[in-house]
Amino acid sequence: MASQEIETLAQALARLPGFGPRSARRAVLHLMKRREAAMLPLLRALEAVNERLSTCDMCGNVDTSNPCTVCADPRRDVRALCVVEEVSDLWALDRSRLFPGKFHVLGGRLSALEGVRPEDLSIDKLLRRVEAGGIDEVVLAMNATLEGQTTAHYIAERLERFPVRLTQLAHGLPVGGELDYLDEGTLAQALRARRPVS
Amino acid sequence: MASQEIETLAQALARLPGFGPRSARRAVLHLMKRREAAMLPLLRALEAVNERLSTCDMCGNVDTSNPCTVCADPRRDVRALCVVEEVSDLWALDRSRLFPGKFHVLGGRLSALEGVRPEDLSIDKLLRRVEAGGIDEVVLAMNATLEGQTTAHYIAERLERFPVRLTQLAHGLPVGGELDYLDEGTLAQALRARRPVS
Ligand SMILES: [Zn+2]
Ligand SMILES: [Zn+2]
Repeated sequence: MASQEIETLAQALARLPGFGPRSARRAVLHLMKRREAAMLPLLRALEAVNERLSTCDMCGNVDTSNPCTVCADPRRDVRALCVVEEVSDLWALDRSRLFPGKFHVLGGRLSALEGVRPEDLSIDKLLRRVEAGGIDEVVLAMNATLEGQTTAHYIAERLERFPVRLTQLAHGLPVGGELDYLDEGTLAQALRARRPVS
Repeated sequence: MASQEIETLAQALARLPGFGPRSARRAVLHLMKRREAAMLPLLRALEAVNERLSTCDMCGNVDTSNPCTVCADPRRDVRALCVVEEVSDLWALDRSRLFPGKFHVLGGRLSALEGVRPEDLSIDKLLRRVEAGGIDEVVLAMNATLEGQTTAHYIAERLERFPVRLTQLAHGLPVGGELDYLDEGTLAQALRARRPVS
């Protein structure tokens, strides 16, 4: 028996990943009871992001500036380029702070099932970036799925003619992974890529 | 390496109950990738609620109208009043649709430890509502905690002089509760309030 405005807000929150109807209602109440401390900061932050929201023309990242914060960062190593399927992958890799270079977002993966073809992805743009020169290494950081690996192979072929080193993320046991609990595919990958004990 | 605006939005979301830094980042990305379908609806809904946000002068509920939706509902039974500690309790009880009457939010519970005295709660207002007449039953729906029950006893004493029926929520085994897993307090309550098998 809440007002229409409150219902609408609860529904908008409930659609966020990690939220459901129940937690959305709790969040709405939290916001309403703390207008100054919670409601207004969230409202202002949303306004600011919404106002400046853009897709980076260089790499495909979403940010509040274009070129994005990553592309505009002068401390980044421009000679290394990491290709990912989605913006979420860029964020995940960037959060880890393990990759010092720049990124390129494909905007998906090749999929016969879903009818995603090379021209549906940002592949031509990637080729132009590599063609422009100055890049030594391209890391293909696709998902370890059939479609991700198909996409990586396709891109590797297209990049063959450029003088860049092509690498990909290692596949194998996740850190802390117990053999008992791993799926067969991961085990097979780990076995296939086994290395001599140093 | 996200922009300041994005960081601020992630932090505002991370402070919501049920959210942490990780899920907040996922939510921000979800919003940015779906401006029309997710970002704008949430922004508009927040604006609408923020603009009309008020505390009901009659019952203490928070809503986008004053009197609130519950107090203004003509189908509610005005002769039954349910007293709760917090707005969240009102929402929880109202959601269950089991109580057909109106509500009164105390805004907390008596607590020697936290220095919450009767005058800190909306108790005088409750007495005035009951004094005004037309109420047959007051349901004391405090939490089954020491402080909740202390508060209920205190209010019961203050309401003694009015010709209303005072009731409180039953305590006992929660539905589906297995004796093995219940705390001693709940078991003691359930045993004390035992009833003849009909
Ligand atoms: Zn960029
Ligand atoms: Zn009200």
